[in-house]
Amino acid sequence: MYEQSATIDPNKPGALMAAIDIGSNSFHMVVARYVEGELKPIDIMSEKVQLASGMDDEGLLTPDAQQRGLDCLSRFAQRLTELPRSAIRAVATNALREAVNGDEFAQQAAKILGLPIQIVAGHEEARLIYLGVCHSLADDSGKRLVIDIGGGSTEFIIGERFEPQLLESLQMGCVSFHEEFFLDGKITEAGFNKAKMAAQQELLSIRRNYKRLGWSSCVGSSGTIKATLQACTELGLSNGIITRDALNKLKTYLLQVGHSDQLTLSTVKPERKAVLPAGVAILDAAFESLDIESMAFSDGALREGVLYDMAGRLRHEDVRERTINALMQRYHIDSKHAYRIEATALIMLAQVKDPWQLNDPEFHDMLCWSARTHEIGLTISHNRYHRHSAYLLQHCDLAGFSNLEQQMLAFLAKGHRRKLPKDEYKTLPDEKRDAYLRLCLLLRLAVIFHRSRSKARLPAFSLQVDGNKLHLCFPSGWLDHHPLTRADLENESEFLKSMDYKLKVD
Amino acid sequence: MYEQSATIDPNKPGALMAAIDIGSNSFHMVVARYVEGELKPIDIMSEKVQLASGMDDEGLLTPDAQQRGLDCLSRFAQRLTELPRSAIRAVATNALREAVNGDEFAQQAAKILGLPIQIVAGHEEARLIYLGVCHSLADDSGKRLVIDIGGGSTEFIIGERFEPQLLESLQMGCVSFHEEFFLDGKITEAGFNKAKMAAQQELLSIRRNYKRLGWSSCVGSSGTIKATLQACTELGLSNGIITRDALNKLKTYLLQVGHSDQLTLSTVKPERKAVLPAGVAILDAAFESLDIESMAFSDGALREGVLYDMAGRLRHEDVRERTINALMQRYHIDSKHAYRIEATALIMLAQVKDPWQLNDPEFHDMLCWSARTHEIGLTISHNRYHRHSAYLLQHCDLAGFSNLEQQMLAFLAKGHRRKLPKDEYKTLPDEKRDAYLRLCLLLRLAVIFHRSRSKARLPAFSLQVDGNKLHLCFPSGWLDHHPLTRADLENESEFLKSMDYKLKVD
Repeated sequence: MYEQSATIDPNKPGALMAAIDIGSNSFHMVVARYVEGELKPIDIMSEKVQLASGMDDEGLLTPDAQQRGLDCLSRFAQRLTELPRSAIRAVATNALREAVNGDEFAQQAAKILGLPIQIVAGHEEARLIYLGVCHSLADDSGKRLVIDIGGGSTEFIIGERFEPQLLESLQMGCVSFHEEFFLDGKITEAGFNKAKMAAQQELLSIRRNYKRLGWSSCVGSSGTIKATLQACTELGLSNGIITRDALNKLKTYLLQVGHSDQLTLSTVKPERKAVLPAGVAILDAAFESLDIESMAFSDGALREGVLYDMAGRLRHEDVRERTINALMQRYHIDSKHAYRIEATALIMLAQVKDPWQLNDPEFHDMLCWSARTHEIGLTISHNRYHRHSAYLLQHCDLAGFSNLEQQMLAFLAKGHRRKLPKDEYKTLPDEKRDAYLRLCLLLRLAVIFHRSRSKARLPAFSLQVDGNKLHLCFPSGWLDHHPLTRADLENESEFLKSMDYKLKVD
Repeated sequence: MYEQSATIDPNKPGALMAAIDIGSNSFHMVVARYVEGELKPIDIMSEKVQLASGMDDEGLLTPDAQQRGLDCLSRFAQRLTELPRSAIRAVATNALREAVNGDEFAQQAAKILGLPIQIVAGHEEARLIYLGVCHSLADDSGKRLVIDIGGGSTEFIIGERFEPQLLESLQMGCVSFHEEFFLDGKITEAGFNKAKMAAQQELLSIRRNYKRLGWSSCVGSSGTIKATLQACTELGLSNGIITRDALNKLKTYLLQVGHSDQLTLSTVKPERKAVLPAGVAILDAAFESLDIESMAFSDGALREGVLYDMAGRLRHEDVRERTINALMQRYHIDSKHAYRIEATALIMLAQVKDPWQLNDPEFHDMLCWSARTHEIGLTISHNRYHRHSAYLLQHCDLAGFSNLEQQMLAFLAKGHRRKLPKDEYKTLPDEKRDAYLRLCLLLRLAVIFHRSRSKARLPAFSLQVDGNKLHLCFPSGWLDHHPLTRADLENESEFLKSMDYKLKVD
């Protein structure tokens, strides 16, 4: 069905790419062919897994729900056997963000798919949704409000063309609201009002900012909004768009029917009917809070956004690069110093990447980004600033980065001086640990080399590694003239012992 | 000896004030009379307690060292019986910052003195030192570099007149360096060079910034620098100032003598001699790293800084107010919204301060400051921003605030929405817990009242409290027209149950 070769070059025109969206309500997969900057979907699969509804009182995904999810991913995996793993990206959202055992599920899922699951923060989810939606729309110039009602969270984005300007993800979704306000499928006025009120309370936190920025058109994505539009159309309430009036009438209709099992709507997928009332309540609240009069629908969604994001990276338009540079500006990084450290770290990486198996471009990128950001914690305090850097890198909204990537950047920043980050090391995924510890050692050495913050050119040093042994050589005499660097390297050699690494300096 | 009345008004001219400096090497106390903006010291006590040298391998203050400290404070306390507690401030620095059981010691000390011990961060210590030193100097207009070598940390400040411009505290001090490099009193060339190198390594992190800003005069404070000057003068190496040449010769002299017990310097206090070599090594490193040619000495120090800081607060020139306002700017706080919350919180405080015993002006101030800063975490991410606000308030360098005060602000920010901060509550000092939980409840209600972020005036509500019961009354009909506020208050009533508080709303 797909190209036969397992060594497809995703850079090649016509190559196949795939995105998987592990959502709280449904899992989606899209396979597309990338031709001249455009993605032509050639295969789409969606399954209603309802992972979020399988969350118990302690926030654990139940074994049943996990099994449903893994079964679905096994079916997706069958369709993807012919694609190289580098041409596939799997992204997970609210259910795995919130579940106590989300990481555990992600690990099992990764085994089935043969690639890591990227759990993304709400802010990043919103960015990817906008990316998917904006590529599906005509390239007009007005501001757009995009709303996507997921199973566990709802994203609100204002953007213009391809640029999002406001991104938020609120903790309300059609599955969680269904369970809280429409349990057993009963649709009551009281339940509807409570759901709408709860949604309005959430919306209070963004309402003012969004209305201040404003928009000229409003677009919905997500299965819930599609189902709402289908219902409005089938009932003759509106055609092609959701109007405020149609939404009100749909609500009246839902209350009259009184139970989701008895909804006779033939255009709405059966599995969508159960969560439709919750979705309509959230949409009603959004219409009212944000003064929306009508909403168009877009087929673009998170999964398309993920594909366009991958395509951007292939064209060297990696949004992560922009994010890091913006971060440097925002936190007043001494950029000359940062770039000197980056350059030195890359020279080291070039010397060790073969023996240390650091050839994946991921390592190159992450080493650069950590060199540029490891000092952002100085904005908080000079005292223990490496910890503050780590906190910021872990928690800031960083467009383009998955939660794990942020954790890695935080690990590198935390470990760039003083003790090696032994505790944090243990929390890294097994397969990443050693590579990132080694990147951390490179960053540390580069930081030591530039500790005087001077412009003076470094000598032609050489770094050789063999397993856990590092051998650093300077031109003869250089270290004698740089006793502080020598003292720092002696300290470093002590620090390295704590993780069973050895540093020899000549 | 002091005024007889126990109700001295520190606002009154001629009133007595006292500051206690719980240092890593020595404890100091100064009692001064405050006359027309100036402080006239009338009593000074200093004891060499060497708290830092009583730190064991696990970072615990030994029972012996603690006892020495508490005995000293008992002697200070005897001299202070006649002063009202509000006229005394006790500040602790590096030894208590670093010791694992620093809080425990602070609590015992607080019992002896009858007032809380304020552990201050290095940055704040540097600010207070500068405040003490600059009041002792002629009011000239050039930039000054001030260096204070303490037992566990050394502070470097560049300032002009009364304004510090760069503040840093480095982890090196005469006690810690004495123990690391001059143990048993032996003064060897190797030990001296290692100590100097270690100090230079620390100085690397500030050197460039300090030299870039520059200064026109250099002043030292602290007992170590005083002892160095005394030694230079007694040996005829320099007179009234420490020159680079004199410092070099003093070093040669120390190495020739070879042991601190054999130093015959009669002008240097016996207990200073032991740590003199470590102090000279640090000073030598500072002279070299920062290109200092000569240094004058000032008697002003942390203790005087604390007194001037107290005096400033009495004149309503509280540096904390400036700090909070600067923080609001730096983190782009929606200040109109913050001030509305502050105003509402203060109306509530006015209604409950008697039954809830919140009459101390501290509570008023802290409630205001928390209202202004509880949203600073939005700069990191909207997601869980109350946690980010707490992190920033805890870790940022906030001039004028003690560590405990920062912890309290962080507590209020963390608790301003969502679940009540039960875990953080347990970490607060016993005597503060309930007051701050109640302040937190007031802040939460004020936040709820203004959740729509609108300018609309609030109605004349009344808040009555009786122990753990709160009764909130709105003019009849108001809540019916504000169903979101009603719903929020219903949620709030649920949250309060977790801490055994009851909220009734009419």
